[in-house]
Amino acid sequence: MAGETLEPLERLTDMFRHLDGVGKKTAMRYAYSVLSFTDDEAKAFADAILSAKTQIHPCKRCQNITTGEYCPLCQDERRDGSLICVVEDPRAVAAIEKTRQYGGLYHVLHGTLSPARGITPDRIKIRELLTRLQTEPVQEVILATNPTVEGEATAMYIAKLLSPLGIKVSRIANGVPVGGDLEFADEVTLRRAMEGRYLI
Amino acid sequence: MAGETLEPLERLTDMFRHLDGVGKKTAMRYAYSVLSFTDDEAKAFADAILSAKTQIHPCKRCQNITTGEYCPLCQDERRDGSLICVVEDPRAVAAIEKTRQYGGLYHVLHGTLSPARGITPDRIKIRELLTRLQTEPVQEVILATNPTVEGEATAMYIAKLLSPLGIKVSRIANGVPVGGDLEFADEVTLRRAMEGRYLI
Repeated sequence: MAGETLEPLERLTDMFRHLDGVGKKTAMRYAYSVLSFTDDEAKAFADAILSAKTQIHPCKRCQNITTGEYCPLCQDERRDGSLICVVEDPRAVAAIEKTRQYGGLYHVLHGTLSPARGITPDRIKIRELLTRLQTEPVQEVILATNPTVEGEATAMYIAKLLSPLGIKVSRIANGVPVGGDLEFADEVTLRRAMEGRYLI
Repeated sequence: MAGETLEPLERLTDMFRHLDGVGKKTAMRYAYSVLSFTDDEAKAFADAILSAKTQIHPCKRCQNITTGEYCPLCQDERRDGSLICVVEDPRAVAAIEKTRQYGGLYHVLHGTLSPARGITPDRIKIRELLTRLQTEPVQEVILATNPTVEGEATAMYIAKLLSPLGIKVSRIANGVPVGGDLEFADEVTLRRAMEGRYLI
């Protein structure tokens, strides 16, 4: 007596579940939403997914996402190449840029260390950071991973790794609410966190 | 000094905002999620959207979504053709089918009346319901729109429209929590609501 299981709808629901933070009910709601799209909207949606995947990739230098070979920040000669701010993801770059206070470069790890989830140092862009430190005139590395357990652990891991190199290593201050996410911090809080960074 | 605006990412974020209940921050989170998909996952996602749109359409009889010309419920001769349960959307059909208690047919309106949002009777599948009542041996129409202001108004509108036809018209009981959505009701509540329906 149960209704039909619509394979295309199931498949679409499954794909929505791949998105960050989407559960079964929400995925189903999104799938139904798509059914009420016009044909043109659906095509635009599918095309936007493929375009984003094919046109956006990591900057060869800082690993931030870009459509070019190098991101505009790395190409901007006014940026201070002696400072590298290490963040978890591209959203943190966008959040810090909004403060209009930081003038150095970035390095995007694309993740944090998490032994529980099998994220070992080789799974995030730590090796690429070390390479940069050997070839770029870096004087200070600011560790701006999120103030979460995993973000802190990643910062500590990198700090230890860099200690023999004689480069100043700092951590943003806990102006950022502990347990939160850089993306959702207001600009003043982020500014304070950058100013109050301490040596480790 | 602000970072790059990535057009493909902006476009993808905009598309996610078309989904039911998705705001700007959430849409951006989803767009970033897609960037971490593998190429195959992104292709599967895009394909799932297009497949769902091209393969799923309304049943010619009850307007429920299906991949065939008629949905399996309408094709099932064991279903009681003298009963039509009118619902807002396909999710309500799935919810009622789960109770395994209702043996009649359905009619999916694909919306509710809402003068404020410009949803007039011709924008939902009311005309198709009237056509069915002229050609099918229907004895009772159960109005099972959601117990919201718009769902109630839609039920009342249809009840008035049907009153000259001499067909029994009922409304599901308020076992369904007022202000809620059929999709999220538990099976017992839905069963009670079907049993306790009253004539109007």
